[in-house]
Parts: sequence; C-alpha cells; structure tokens
Amino acid sequence: MTTQEILEAARSAKSALALADNTARNAALLGMADALCDAQNQSAILAANAEDMAAAKGHISDVMLDRLALTVPRIEAMAQGIREVAALPDPVGRVLNRVERPNGLVIEKTAVPMGVIAIIYESRPNVTSDAAALAIKSGNACILRCGKEAWRSAHAIVTALRQGLKKAGLPETAVCLIEDTTHASANALMTAVGYVDLLIPRGGAGLIRACVQNAKVPCIQTGTGICHVYVDDTADLDKALDIIENAKASRPSVCNAEEVCLVHSAIAGEFLPRLAQRLGPDRIAKGLHPIELRLDKRAAAIISGTPAGEKDFDTEFLDYILAVKVVDSVEEAIGHIAEHSTGHSEAILTQTQAHADLFTAAVDSAAVYVNCSTRFTDGGEFGLGCEMGISTQKLHARGPMGLAELCSYKYIIHGNGQIR
Amino acid sequence: MTTQEILEAARSAKSALALADNTARNAALLGMADALCDAQNQSAILAANAEDMAAAKGHISDVMLDRLALTVPRIEAMAQGIREVAALPDPVGRVLNRVERPNGLVIEKTAVPMGVIAIIYESRPNVTSDAAALAIKSGNACILRCGKEAWRSAHAIVTALRQGLKKAGLPETAVCLIEDTTHASANALMTAVGYVDLLIPRGGAGLIRACVQNAKVPCIQTGTGICHVYVDDTADLDKALDIIENAKASRPSVCNAEEVCLVHSAIAGEFLPRLAQRLGPDRIAKGLHPIELRLDKRAAAIISGTPAGEKDFDTEFLDYILAVKVVDSVEEAIGHIAEHSTGHSEAILTQTQAHADLFTAAVDSAAVYVNCSTRFTDGGEFGLGCEMGISTQKLHARGPMGLAELCSYKYIIHGNGQIR
Repeated sequence: MTTQEILEAARSAKSALALADNTARNAALLGMADALCDAQNQSAILAANAEDMAAAKGHISDVMLDRLALTVPRIEAMAQGIREVAALPDPVGRVLNRVERPNGLVIEKTAVPMGVIAIIYESRPNVTSDAAALAIKSGNACILRCGKEAWRSAHAIVTALRQGLKKAGLPETAVCLIEDTTHASANALMTAVGYVDLLIPRGGAGLIRACVQNAKVPCIQTGTGICHVYVDDTADLDKALDIIENAKASRPSVCNAEEVCLVHSAIAGEFLPRLAQRLGPDRIAKGLHPIELRLDKRAAAIISGTPAGEKDFDTEFLDYILAVKVVDSVEEAIGHIAEHSTGHSEAILTQTQAHADLFTAAVDSAAVYVNCSTRFTDGGEFGLGCEMGISTQKLHARGPMGLAELCSYKYIIHGNGQIR
Repeated sequence: MTTQEILEAARSAKSALALADNTARNAALLGMADALCDAQNQSAILAANAEDMAAAKGHISDVMLDRLALTVPRIEAMAQGIREVAALPDPVGRVLNRVERPNGLVIEKTAVPMGVIAIIYESRPNVTSDAAALAIKSGNACILRCGKEAWRSAHAIVTALRQGLKKAGLPETAVCLIEDTTHASANALMTAVGYVDLLIPRGGAGLIRACVQNAKVPCIQTGTGICHVYVDDTADLDKALDIIENAKASRPSVCNAEEVCLVHSAIAGEFLPRLAQRLGPDRIAKGLHPIELRLDKRAAAIISGTPAGEKDFDTEFLDYILAVKVVDSVEEAIGHIAEHSTGHSEAILTQTQAHADLFTAAVDSAAVYVNCSTRFTDGGEFGLGCEMGISTQKLHARGPMGLAELCSYKYIIHGNGQIR
C-alpha cells in the first residue's frame, strides 16, 4: 500500500476505535498478545528478524544489533507488555471536570481519543507492539513508521497484531505499518493534515529537528536530554557521589542520563577529587567502565581530566563522558541550565531548602529533582504504568507520556432547551 | 524596536514572571487597570484611536469600524476586565497530581507558565488588554501582534499597561507590541523557535491556514466554526425552533453560530415549514433580519428558498444564512458532520437517549451539545471566567481556552538520595 492509502486506511478506523468501549479494546489487546504467542506467528517473526539481522550486520553497531535481535522470550515479553497495558485503567471517557451552570447546563470535560497517532521510530522491534498497544488502549488508530533495519520484523509483528484486532472485531487498519522506509514517508506523515491527529517522533536529534522544521500536523518533541546535576554548597557529598554515578553511569545511552555536573565553588576543592576517584579508579577497580571528565578551567585547576571543548556543555554524549563546571551560586547554576539545557531533567543536590525551592521554581525543564537521580524520568518510575516517549516541549504533554497524554478531550453539554 | 529585539525582550521577562507569585501578578494587573483609568493615558489612547479611525474609514466595513472605535466607557470596561482577571483563582503552581512512590520519591505534577505567549489578532483594541491580562495572570510574558488598523490604539494601550507593570516591579517587556504590522512580523512569530512558547492566532481562516502551514513554534488553531444543529425525529420541535433561531441569529458573526441545520426526514415535512416561517416572516414581523435558507434538494422539495450551491455545506457564512439538509438517520447526520465540520460545536436535538449518546460519542468536535444552542461555546458560559480563544484542534487545548490552558506543567520531584 502507498503511504497515502495507509493514511486513509488508518483514518477510516478512527470511528470504530472511538466507539469501542474498554472491554472491546481490552479484548483486542489480549487477542494481539495471544497472536504474538502463537507458534506460527513466532516463527514468521523470528524468520523476518533473522533477515533484518543479516541485512544489518556490519552496517550498525553491536549495541544496535542487540536491540534489533528478537528471541522467543523477547517476543513473549512483548506479549506480556501488551497484557499489562490492557490491565491499566481506561483513559477514555473519564470526566476530567464537571460543572453545572446556573442556567441548568451540565458541562462535562471528557477524555477522548486523539484519533490517529503516527509514531516514527528507529530499530527496536518491541516499540512496534508497545506503541500499538498504547494506541489501542487509548482508543486511537496508529500508523507506525519504523527504521528500515527493523522493517521486516515490524511487518511480521504487525501482521500478528492484526489477527488479534480482527478476532476482537476491531478494524485491522487500526494498526498500520508504513511500507516505505525512506525520508519521503516520514515527510508524508509530518504533513498529513487531516489524517494524523498526533505525530510522535521517537529518535535522535536529527529526526526531532526535521519534525520541528517540517511538521504541519500536531507533533510532540521527545527525547533529547542534556541533563544537569548541580551539587550545591550544602549537599550531602556522600549521597551526591552515589547520585551522580547513578545518573551518569547506570545507563549512559538513555535520555535521562546526566551529561553535565555543576559544582558549587565552596565545596569543589573537597568534592571534585572524590568525584574523580569515584568515577575513575573506583569504577575500574570494580571492573566497570570509567567516566571521562571534561573539565572547565576552574574544575581543571582542582582535578585532572580532559579540558572541556566549546561544545561539551551542549552535547548529549550518551556515553561514559561527563562535563564538569564550577559555579559560584545556585543562581549561576540556574542561569547555566537555562542557556544549555534541552528541558528534559535537572537535579539539585542540597540541604538548603531555599535553594531547592528557587531551583525547582526557576528551572524550566520537564522534570526538576531535589536530592535524587535524573534517571527517574520514566513512565514506569512515575507510576504511569507505561510510556510512549518523554516530551521535552511544553504544549499538551511534558515529561513521560502515558495513556492520558495520548488522549484529547471534548466538552459534552446536556441541556433542555437552553438558549443564550 | 525590530521584531527580533522584541522577541529577545519578551524572553528576558520570562523568568521574572515565572518567579512572581499571585500577589505580585495581581498587583501588576491592578496597576495595569489603574493606568487605563488615568486621564492622561485615556486622552492618549483616544487620540491614537481617532487616528486609527480616520485612517481606516472607507477601508473597512462599518461593523469593523465600530469594533475599532474606543470611548471612555469602552476603555473603562477594558480596565474592569483586567480587574476581573485579577480576581480569578491563580492558575500557576497548582499541583495537578501528586504521587508518593514506593521508593519514597514524591512526584508533583505542577502547573507552570508557558513562558512567552504570542497572540496574532485583528482590529479589536480590547483584545490588547484582555490578552495581556490573561498572559500576566498566568505568569507568561506576551507578544501582541495586532492588525495595522488598530496599531496606534494598541500602542497607546500597551504604553499605559506597561506603566502598571513597572509600578508593580515587573519588567515592562512582559507585555510587548510588535511594531511591524506586515506579514513579515507574523511569519517571524510563527518561526521564532526558542523565543515563542505558544502562538495563538486569532483571526480568519486565512491566518489560521498560514499558521498551520508555516508555524514552527507550538501553535493553537482557533476559531473557525462551521457548526451544525441536527434535529432528530423525536426532537421537541417548539424547543428546536427556539434553539435554531438562537444558534443562527443571536450573533451570526461569531464562530459558535450555527451554519448548517440537518433535519431528520421523518419530521422534515412538519418541521421545515415551521422553521421557514420562524426564520423568515416571523422575524420580519418583529423587525429582525430574516435568515436566508440554502436548501439541499430534499429540503427544497418541502419549502422554498435558495438552492444550496456546492460550497454551502462547507462555508462559515458568519451571516444571516443557514444551509439546510434532510437526512434519514442520526448516523447520516454524524457522517455529514464528520465530513464537513471544522470541529468547533455541534448539537443534537432529540428525546431519544440512545441517539444523544451516539451523537456525543461519535461527533469529534470541541463541544457537543444535547438539546441546547451551540452559542454556549464560550469561556464565560463554560464558567472559565475568561477566554483567550476557542481551540478547534485536539492537542493541549480544545474548546474555550481559559487560564489553565495558558499554562504548561512540570514535574517537581523530591527525594533523599534515591538512585535507580
């Protein structure tokens, strides 16, 4: 099918989805999960994945290859993920606000599906089933556009998922996979006014930039995270070491990992040598990957490390690298963050309440932490039960997006003849 | 100042606004209102308005001229409007959700200002003070870009408002007026990534289309309303006549006015002659402007009127014109609305609960009414206390936008050393 035909197919599924109640949508989800556990489907998915893997070998990194690889346990984990989504509370039809007006009108602000959600993502096959499950649970049709490395796998997965939809009486076109994996199809989604109600790009900075520049449909920017941890003069330094090691090193490739450490000058002399020890020799002794420090001049006067280059305070390293800067006050830290942050997650480590309050009020990011790791910016950790991505914009959704963020609302008003 | 200088000035006011509490913001609002009541400012505003009026005469319609005209009572009404905004509950800092996680993290989803809101509007000078008041109350800096007909008036109003801001210790640049009234400045606002956090175009279909096509900053589509009223076979026909006359004729120039009437075939033979009588001869007898009916073939077989042209079911007349179509079922009405509506406001008039339920579930518009007029889609009528516009899109805000819709949120998380 052409991309235009897919847009039309997805749109045609909208009203069936909007009218399906939670029971019907859950039946579809359980059918989708069962279809992923069907032996014949699993063989087809594994065969398609083997082709993807063979084609990708030598073209993408080993880490990426591992992300791409499917096994029976991984497929069953995908099915389990769908079942967990089915078990979540129904996000659709919730009355968000109800007012009875003096003229007798009853106005209910009611959560409703967006309609058609398009998701552009890269090479992780499990995103295919995760995104489809979240869309169906929230009453939305979805159009999936995956990277070319994962297309065969995604196609086999969608073929299985559609069996589940069909069995439950929902239109198969509620889950659509774009067949064209060139830039043309991504651009078509960005400009599909009247077809796509919400576009969620999940990928690198380049994709997000392209969406900001080209999207004519409503779009949510996700993901890029230059996250800061600021160690204030009254911070508990033992906890600070634990938090920074966790924020930086527990999973450096993710968007909520710390990229920049700001340290108050009053404690820099004591703290920076301990930090260098903790992130370098201590980690090597434990067989862990050490962290390379990129130091501004004042930090470099205290400890040794790579001198920070011009771009080191504006880079999402996604690697075992941490930029370090010495500042003289919480205000200077806030100013630095305002200039260099991507608005994802920032933390202050302090025992001064006034500094914590100023930091949380002034820092304009999706998640602002006091005395804990930035790594908690995550739908599961926030108790949302799931996650479609992490928004770094301010319109509609900010931070981890769960089912509620995949819904819009409408006002339903009951009267008995009122006129104005 | 150039548009770029204004963008920078507004952005520099952001953090002062974000840190100002409700008391400080209200003091600024009351100062702004007082400045509008100052005799010297009023003279300056009236003089500027007289220049605008003189320049516009002969170039815009009498209705538009009347909208443009200012008098002392109108200026004082603007001041009163600002005081009413000050009296509204504080939308900033509200904890929208609070969870305490098993690991002890306390996560508060907290309403925060957007930052800088830009508003593009046409020639009503009171929008200048209304929009500025709503922006300041919600902790936002604002950039106003009015139509060229009203620029001198708007400039004099903003000059007064800034006196109030200054007196209250808030930066004057919290309210900025764009000096360039050509398309160039509108385009500059649409593409001011990093400066404008939310763009609200208030104007005709052309402006909205230009924003959808060109905006690279978050933008909310407002206003265009092709609103439908569907008269079901079990409707109370007396009430239906009242509702339709109200929805169509009480103020035809506004976006929540009815443009299309759909009538069930089972009652069309009885109802349409009564409707024609009510909207034609009855109104003339009362000295009111009659309504021109544009009839589809089936309606034209029952009553006389203008045959509907190709575009009559896709036109926002904003005039004493109503398109009328006969349908055979609530499903057909829903289908017609899905194809022709702009997603603003639609109503069903019925005594059949199942039809009302189907209509409210299936119609994908900001406001869906049962047995009352579409004219209630309005911030005041919805109890929001104010209104910045009516969103016809689904992202972030839908329907009347009040103070809450001018806010984003962020997550503020308190811990005591938690790592993941």
